Amino acid sequence: MEQHHPKQMVLVGFIQASNCSNYPGSWRHRDGSDDFLLPGYYQHIARTLEKGKFHLAFVDDRLAMPDRYEDSFAATVEHGIRTVKLDLGPVVTAMALATEHIGIGATYSTTYHTPFHVARLFATLDHFSGGRIAWNVVTSLNDSEAMNFGADAHPPHDVRYDRADEFMETAFGLWDTWGGEALVLDRSEGRFADPSRVRRLDHSGEWFNSRGPLTVPRCPQGRPVIIQAGQSGRGREFAARWGELVFVIVPTLEACRSHRTTIREQAAFQGRDPDSTIVSPAVYVVVDETEDRAREKLQELKALAHPMDSVVLLSEVFNYDFSVHPLDEPLSDDMLDSISGLRGFLDRVTQRSAGGNPSVQDFIRFSARGTLDELPTFAGTPEEVADGLENWFQEGACDGFVLAATHIPGAYEDFVEMVVPELQRRGSFRADYEGATLRENLGLDRPGAWS
Amino acid sequence: MEQHHPKQMVLVGFIQASNCSNYPGSWRHRDGSDDFLLPGYYQHIARTLEKGKFHLAFVDDRLAMPDRYEDSFAATVEHGIRTVKLDLGPVVTAMALATEHIGIGATYSTTYHTPFHVARLFATLDHFSGGRIAWNVVTSLNDSEAMNFGADAHPPHDVRYDRADEFMETAFGLWDTWGGEALVLDRSEGRFADPSRVRRLDHSGEWFNSRGPLTVPRCPQGRPVIIQAGQSGRGREFAARWGELVFVIVPTLEACRSHRTTIREQAAFQGRDPDSTIVSPAVYVVVDETEDRAREKLQELKALAHPMDSVVLLSEVFNYDFSVHPLDEPLSDDMLDSISGLRGFLDRVTQRSAGGNPSVQDFIRFSARGTLDELPTFAGTPEEVADGLENWFQEGACDGFVLAATHIPGAYEDFVEMVVPELQRRGSFRADYEGATLRENLGLDRPGAWS
Repeated sequence: MEQHHPKQMVLVGFIQASNCSNYPGSWRHRDGSDDFLLPGYYQHIARTLEKGKFHLAFVDDRLAMPDRYEDSFAATVEHGIRTVKLDLGPVVTAMALATEHIGIGATYSTTYHTPFHVARLFATLDHFSGGRIAWNVVTSLNDSEAMNFGADAHPPHDVRYDRADEFMETAFGLWDTWGGEALVLDRSEGRFADPSRVRRLDHSGEWFNSRGPLTVPRCPQGRPVIIQAGQSGRGREFAARWGELVFVIVPTLEACRSHRTTIREQAAFQGRDPDSTIVSPAVYVVVDETEDRAREKLQELKALAHPMDSVVLLSEVFNYDFSVHPLDEPLSDDMLDSISGLRGFLDRVTQRSAGGNPSVQDFIRFSARGTLDELPTFAGTPEEVADGLENWFQEGACDGFVLAATHIPGAYEDFVEMVVPELQRRGSFRADYEGATLRENLGLDRPGAWS
Repeated sequence: MEQHHPKQMVLVGFIQASNCSNYPGSWRHRDGSDDFLLPGYYQHIARTLEKGKFHLAFVDDRLAMPDRYEDSFAATVEHGIRTVKLDLGPVVTAMALATEHIGIGATYSTTYHTPFHVARLFATLDHFSGGRIAWNVVTSLNDSEAMNFGADAHPPHDVRYDRADEFMETAFGLWDTWGGEALVLDRSEGRFADPSRVRRLDHSGEWFNSRGPLTVPRCPQGRPVIIQAGQSGRGREFAARWGELVFVIVPTLEACRSHRTTIREQAAFQGRDPDSTIVSPAVYVVVDETEDRAREKLQELKALAHPMDSVVLLSEVFNYDFSVHPLDEPLSDDMLDSISGLRGFLDRVTQRSAGGNPSVQDFIRFSARGTLDELPTFAGTPEEVADGLENWFQEGACDGFVLAATHIPGAYEDFVEMVVPELQRRGSFRADYEGATLRENLGLDRPGAWS
């Protein structure tokens, strides 16, 4: 299978199990739904994306409300700024049961869960879905999450990634405790499975011990597809080691291409085939039949933002209470050093504030956190949007796109109804699912089983 | 609502997310299915029980294979002795989505999970199911589970229950971080929810810290129904404090009545209404249209047992490798003291071995572990089975029954097709669901919300 630069792009839906999408303003949209606590809400999104032949729909997660700002949840609750976060086990199960072909991904933290639990959950999901499951590996973000899970503070950045590396080794080992074709299922002889095809893991490390074997037979994909989004130096190293679908937050085509090149180089350095990393930027798309209507729609959507959205989500992502500083005063070096959240995000802001240390206002402006300007936004007619996406793709900036929703479910519906047919017409996107499992549909190898 | 001794019995289905039921021989039945790794297997059971108007279907769990015997998983894997244990999040979600009225319960351990995770999972499930979720609280059993989760040995019995008490306080507190009617959902004004109806928990204890608030709004039942099965002294105290559905493993009507009396007394001692504890024994039922056919069916089912079933499951439940002793040699006092598994189970065996310390053979004989004699078995025609169940119920031994399956799905189907109509004809069991939530159908109060 030709994969160096695949002829057709990968499409992924970015979903929050929340009252809003990545864009907090989305819940304020007049066509929004109050059903975000019910399975049908997520099943409709999954079915819509499957109708559009998307490769994957994956659900993001955080383990706390954004409540670093003013050390309070008040603004988050009042304004609906990603207030709700459901447990993803039920959410992705509901989505998998409502679909037949599309991959379904869930975010799980290596900092606040255990390898045996995560390995068992994803193996079960992979069986239930017939091999369509992906795991978005995160190390979590801030003290609010730590405090919900019994720690005083979130572990330092590089320590989280060291721990995450060992978590992955343990989980991979547990998935591999069952070899191929272990199940015998001979009722009359009473032979259930072949003990010589099951083994212990006996992992004993710095962070984790786990003996195994897993209580779930080898799953259809061997193991779930690994999604990763680490962007800092250490995070990128982690993504290059483990990530199969690497999604990135980048402002421009050039930044994306550079990032993709780095990920591919680092993957090769770690002995992996660079083509086993599918690098895709998160993007917004606003599409309508005419330019005027698309422009109008974009303005309407932008107007849904609330001034608190940015500063609340910035405080969350940087694990830093921005309310304690005057808006326009540059942060000191010590303050910047103490920001322990998403380092890759911080690097982007400091690079852009060329005039010295950034102020809170600089953070708001350069990150555009919580607004539609945070991600590259492709707005226009179906042809214009397809032009834009094809440009990034053909210029080697990416292998596909992760579609974040400006509103729900409208953004997914619009894309599937208007953009997908245009991409298909041009041959940039496939006409149908080609394989049975997510790995097959992404052109990723199935890990071999020992025997 | 009259509940001191309700006129109608509660019926609960006992399910394993495994290749077999409680009875390992069940998978060897000629009508068994190989689909135990797929959601449809569990959905069929749930639908069957709902057709029979069962109050609840709940799924048991362990966090390791039974591999204490010979310190090996070989016999377990070879003979299919509860080898497989799927993660219950996907299993109970699938069951809830396939049904509309029946309650759905999942087992979660207070020893190997965290309160924030469990509280969020069950709140999500309760929303998804429209208020039909129950949590079977366990403290886990043995070193095999401990070693999968990174500990060298399972914590001592009473320590586990102390920890479990604090786990429950924390989880209950998290469910209560959202008061009633907190959601505003005013899109045009951008008011999502009322911050004065959300609060922190700020729990800081010996075992757990958790700040909250939970990221899931107050769930339909206020909190899930609590299932508990502690039978040792300390376990019974825990069950009387927290349990709403208390299921028990008892050999006789008299033992069940005595147990029910104790639970009710202890619940009253703790300031609870005794009628808020629904005490129900686990039972097997083998039913057919004639006595002869029922007897024949029972013999066929008993013949599915394998000699290894008992000793493997005994070693699991007692957290003790029984292979290291001659079968007929009494265990020393020290050995008995070192058994750290299910203490209530151990007490039953030692009570029956009147002649001194039990041998391994005594354990096998008196526990009947892994055989159909382990639980009270009601076998016969629909009328005979109904007579037997009604006798226990009318004698005040119990408030209902927890049906374990001799084979799958046949045992559930037989009961629903033959026994339920007979019980309904007699007025001992309801004709239909009366409420929308599990709490309503069980006659349990909904916890009030602060405001």
